[in-house]
Amino acid sequence: MTHDHQRVRKTAVTLADGRELLYFGAVPERPADYPDRRRLDPVHVQSQARRDQLLGEWVIIASHRQDRTFQPVTSHCPLCPSTADNLTEIPAPDYEVVVFENRFPTLGSRDPDHAGDGDNLLVGHPAGGRCEVVCFSPQHDASFADLTPGHAATVMAAWVDRSAELARQPGVEQVYCFENRGEEIGVTLSHPHGQIYAYPYVTPRTDRMLANCASYRNRTGRNLFDDLLDAEHADSRRIVLHGRHWTAFVPYAAHWPYEVHLYPRRRVPDLAALPDAARAEFCELYLDLLRRFDRLFGSLAPYISGWHQAPVHHGRDEFALHLELFTIRRAPGKLKYLAGSESGLGAFANDVVPEAAAERLRQLG
Amino acid sequence: MTHDHQRVRKTAVTLADGRELLYFGAVPERPADYPDRRRLDPVHVQSQARRDQLLGEWVIIASHRQDRTFQPVTSHCPLCPSTADNLTEIPAPDYEVVVFENRFPTLGSRDPDHAGDGDNLLVGHPAGGRCEVVCFSPQHDASFADLTPGHAATVMAAWVDRSAELARQPGVEQVYCFENRGEEIGVTLSHPHGQIYAYPYVTPRTDRMLANCASYRNRTGRNLFDDLLDAEHADSRRIVLHGRHWTAFVPYAAHWPYEVHLYPRRRVPDLAALPDAARAEFCELYLDLLRRFDRLFGSLAPYISGWHQAPVHHGRDEFALHLELFTIRRAPGKLKYLAGSESGLGAFANDVVPEAAAERLRQLG
Repeated sequence: MTHDHQRVRKTAVTLADGRELLYFGAVPERPADYPDRRRLDPVHVQSQARRDQLLGEWVIIASHRQDRTFQPVTSHCPLCPSTADNLTEIPAPDYEVVVFENRFPTLGSRDPDHAGDGDNLLVGHPAGGRCEVVCFSPQHDASFADLTPGHAATVMAAWVDRSAELARQPGVEQVYCFENRGEEIGVTLSHPHGQIYAYPYVTPRTDRMLANCASYRNRTGRNLFDDLLDAEHADSRRIVLHGRHWTAFVPYAAHWPYEVHLYPRRRVPDLAALPDAARAEFCELYLDLLRRFDRLFGSLAPYISGWHQAPVHHGRDEFALHLELFTIRRAPGKLKYLAGSESGLGAFANDVVPEAAAERLRQLG
Repeated sequence: MTHDHQRVRKTAVTLADGRELLYFGAVPERPADYPDRRRLDPVHVQSQARRDQLLGEWVIIASHRQDRTFQPVTSHCPLCPSTADNLTEIPAPDYEVVVFENRFPTLGSRDPDHAGDGDNLLVGHPAGGRCEVVCFSPQHDASFADLTPGHAATVMAAWVDRSAELARQPGVEQVYCFENRGEEIGVTLSHPHGQIYAYPYVTPRTDRMLANCASYRNRTGRNLFDDLLDAEHADSRRIVLHGRHWTAFVPYAAHWPYEVHLYPRRRVPDLAALPDAARAEFCELYLDLLRRFDRLFGSLAPYISGWHQAPVHHGRDEFALHLELFTIRRAPGKLKYLAGSESGLGAFANDVVPEAAAERLRQLG
């Protein structure tokens, strides 16, 4: 069986409380044989987007999430396939990759017509958008790094499918596929999984990248992402690995102890625009990178990994799809915390020299 | 004895490795009687500021900090007064408040003439500036919240003195007095202390606040800080407490579970410009606020607290001095982590409704 994304089977079912669940890949053969047998109360989701006028950014207020599932025991993992003793979020007894609407979403409002706050400066309104969970594997103790390239390709197919479909939903401005891995990051479920957020606004960091692209274009007539990638190639000291279609490097001004950015050689705005050959090669390189990260400290590295995609309606001619992967661990047993300087002022300090981080990651190949 | 800041005594001494240490307040009577008896190797500080062109911000690369002191046992706390058995950073056998240059500073370069990187896009240079440590009390197990108002006034006098003096140093663009409290924030020394960073650049969050002030001024002819404070007063639901000179409120678009901003009623650019009466009242209100935070969860709240001051050379007519205090705890035993959405995209979600946070903090008075 090939894992060309276009041939990955996708089957939609509906969970007991009305949420959508999608199976990607070869199993189960007949999902309709496995209905959701749980009795679930409907969830009242009422997120609000509020404007921080001083910072010029939206903040989501999502009070309904305080009761979300918190580090359940393994025998009650809600992301494992269902068994007779444990009816989980996934009704089937096996799966390859599954995506479903989060029962405790940060984004989304069941009441989109609810009026917002009225003050000139205190501006808020119900937050549209959607939050999905991606189960990478039915194996509770696996990691993304344990997947075969073929299995990773099914995850990639799910990311592409969801990114394209969520971008078509009314009110969605940006789609973000990401993984938080490790208790140190605050992950409340250890089963290997990621998330997809479809935001009702362009997020602050993306906004800034596009603003800097625009001013660079005005100054030079050129694309900032292209020129930065060229500069990293020309310098070469921070390149970790590369293939025919991708380059992975520690950025010159890395914010985190070990941080790698993975760019396709040919700029595209988002995952849907990525050619098939690049999608396939990504899986090989990304698995390689994750395995190097897990060799850094003698224990699995806590990490955040996310796909930066062009917003749905803005900046598509300038933005460059790329993945940013970083660990918050700076040494065995020591974490990089965002304390006063970072959280208060946005001023980052990094104790690991990017050239040394790249050298270390090259040696761990 | 009054604690008017202008009468707080300040005595400078030099530590064994050449760093400066300042005693503020009544003790010791004769600092020269207590020389630093340690043998300290000089520290080679070589921080670099590198430009992140995509985000339009500086990142400090400070490799010399990886070996800094990490959670020493109490009997070897370097911030306690010195004893025969424990020669600490503070040579004297007692003190009220002490400020000294950090032995492991994030900022600062002993080699300011070292050439920077040359590429058009990969721009970096030695990072000037200075990092200081502020010991709030000689009592190892105390907290800021345990101080008397008079003792807090001595801390305030130290903040004012250092802010004004560091602002006069060449190359300093912004001064930040802050406290990280709690292991959950990554604090490596439990002795009650804060820090002061004198940055060689205007920090990203301050930069954004000033940009939004400028565009608001262009649109309305008015000051954004003034109008936001007026809007919070008019709404009143998020006000936690106020005095004659200060108002403390949970901001409408709070990023953190429990977050309070403390503004002087009359806008001033920085601590040095704060009238004496406002300085004195601040101490009362701030101690009250910190004690409420410590009652939130049944255990001491981890928190970050910082003074936002106008940059030294920019935006002084628009910026409003204020203190931002927040805890990263969202419930007993549960922390708010900056994971994929916040760290990757700068998109914050807050699970605690600001009006409810303010109500809770009012009740804890």
